[in-house]
Amino acid sequence: MAKPYVIGVDMGGTNTAFGIVDARGNVVASSSIKTAKHSKIEDYIDELYQAVYRLMEDNDAVGKVQGIGIGAPNGNYYTGRVEGAPNLPWPSPIPLAELVTNKFGIPCIITNDANAAGVGEMTYGAARGMKDFIMITLGTGVGSGIVVNGQMVYGHDGFAGELGHVIVKRSNGRQCGCGRTGCLETYCSATGVARTAREFLEIRKEDSLLRKMDIAAITSKDVFDAAIAGDQLAKEIFDYTGTILGEALADFMAFSSPEAFVIFGGLAKSGDLIMKPIKEAFRKNVLPIFRDGVKIVFSEMKEADAAILGASALGWEVKD
Amino acid sequence: MAKPYVIGVDMGGTNTAFGIVDARGNVVASSSIKTAKHSKIEDYIDELYQAVYRLMEDNDAVGKVQGIGIGAPNGNYYTGRVEGAPNLPWPSPIPLAELVTNKFGIPCIITNDANAAGVGEMTYGAARGMKDFIMITLGTGVGSGIVVNGQMVYGHDGFAGELGHVIVKRSNGRQCGCGRTGCLETYCSATGVARTAREFLEIRKEDSLLRKMDIAAITSKDVFDAAIAGDQLAKEIFDYTGTILGEALADFMAFSSPEAFVIFGGLAKSGDLIMKPIKEAFRKNVLPIFRDGVKIVFSEMKEADAAILGASALGWEVKD
Repeated sequence: MAKPYVIGVDMGGTNTAFGIVDARGNVVASSSIKTAKHSKIEDYIDELYQAVYRLMEDNDAVGKVQGIGIGAPNGNYYTGRVEGAPNLPWPSPIPLAELVTNKFGIPCIITNDANAAGVGEMTYGAARGMKDFIMITLGTGVGSGIVVNGQMVYGHDGFAGELGHVIVKRSNGRQCGCGRTGCLETYCSATGVARTAREFLEIRKEDSLLRKMDIAAITSKDVFDAAIAGDQLAKEIFDYTGTILGEALADFMAFSSPEAFVIFGGLAKSGDLIMKPIKEAFRKNVLPIFRDGVKIVFSEMKEADAAILGASALGWEVKD
Repeated sequence: MAKPYVIGVDMGGTNTAFGIVDARGNVVASSSIKTAKHSKIEDYIDELYQAVYRLMEDNDAVGKVQGIGIGAPNGNYYTGRVEGAPNLPWPSPIPLAELVTNKFGIPCIITNDANAAGVGEMTYGAARGMKDFIMITLGTGVGSGIVVNGQMVYGHDGFAGELGHVIVKRSNGRQCGCGRTGCLETYCSATGVARTAREFLEIRKEDSLLRKMDIAAITSKDVFDAAIAGDQLAKEIFDYTGTILGEALADFMAFSSPEAFVIFGGLAKSGDLIMKPIKEAFRKNVLPIFRDGVKIVFSEMKEADAAILGASALGWEVKD
């Protein structure tokens, strides 16, 4: 019989958040540790084990955990390894699922952070009951989790769903961290919004609240605040961002014809500033048969719990 | 118990080919009728019934057919209807699966022609044993059949896999039959190759065998013949076509990370003329993690049987 709890772990470059989750998707208790402070992966796993064990003891969950799910940058569902994640301090590949399974004595499944969010959205969020949807995460980068026929698409090697690295500008595109140019994430991530702001401020001549700031240090949050304060240039930066994303979603539609796109992550807080141009560009660019058949919505998951919940859902997949 | 045969029907705008297929994928017998000669769909179904029945009688297959699979332009797997197919003479939507099921007394499943080819390739062709691959059909248009986790991707509405209508040129793209501009199929279909030839002949100044022809009537076959005869401009037309396709495949890779791309249809006969630039552009444009993990191959199905076999494979899906 399945045990009553799972553990969800959201492993980021700076912090690792984790929580005990029950079968209804309630985060019973949660905590976090620093990811980067250990130069050896074994020391990190030790600290994670102690912190999680303490949380289980405090919540009467020892021996009652079915599985551990981890969302990690570049986490590979099939191999259980983290491969080539630029923000983690340990040599690649990291056999994360194996290390955790052995240390905890509880089976562990990992995936990348965007897929974890997709699993969470399907299990607990805006995509409940949907068999075909695409999750787009707009954070420091652009990630995606694709669900087809009710199953997360991992691809033949576990690396499917890298829609942030679809090329949206073939010539003269922005340099991407992946080594190529013109990737979607160079335009539509939080970092991309800040880059657009710097470009616009250099090329355009209008006055803007953003000109009062240290231009090199502008963030997407600054652009958001300026837009909310009525700044025209800041609004146009969101138009530009949303338009590129809407054009890209129109192409993704031709691929798997999802019931919905679910937009998740920091930029999703921009509301209509980004949603309106996304929807306009989508409608203008999508194949006519798809024009009225799709929902584009924001995630319904509580920001603080989303990543833990998403990862935890993987914990239910482990076999007894 | 399953019966020993299925019927595969390849419904084109001009001809409808059909065959009796056994469980090993042998086309036991085949024949065809004209599609367009009937102004009423009921008359077409009548003639198809008589022709198929005759073939069944001649091959001792009456009462031994498990199901009928039809590949039809814009055929929708879920609804069983053909919707808005520009090359068919009857009002849309056509409830094709229902008409055939009722007339034949044998369950019928339909899908679009490219998905049928994908099912065929998975069952009998180059993708046997693969759980994740993408079929690209290069004919009058560009079609696609996407398989994920061993299942054809139909999407939430049955219209998934329209990769011929991904936009590859955002500005100044060619007019597409779908009403938009810059679609992949305006460049990489047989028709697209002929359009490229006309553009190149107008813009470029070099001598070419193609200049001896009626430029308005040039076909992709003419370009192929010229390239084989050593014509430099004709070779560059294939380079241009293959490069655009390779760039597009690199983006598709980021979606579902397939084990293989299978290239099918008339242009696939161009061999290395098109395969070389496809592979070069793919390698140059794909996300580094995918660079060495994918096969790009031509279909292994016999051209004449391919469409019938592909459609027939659907016949095994019907329930008793």
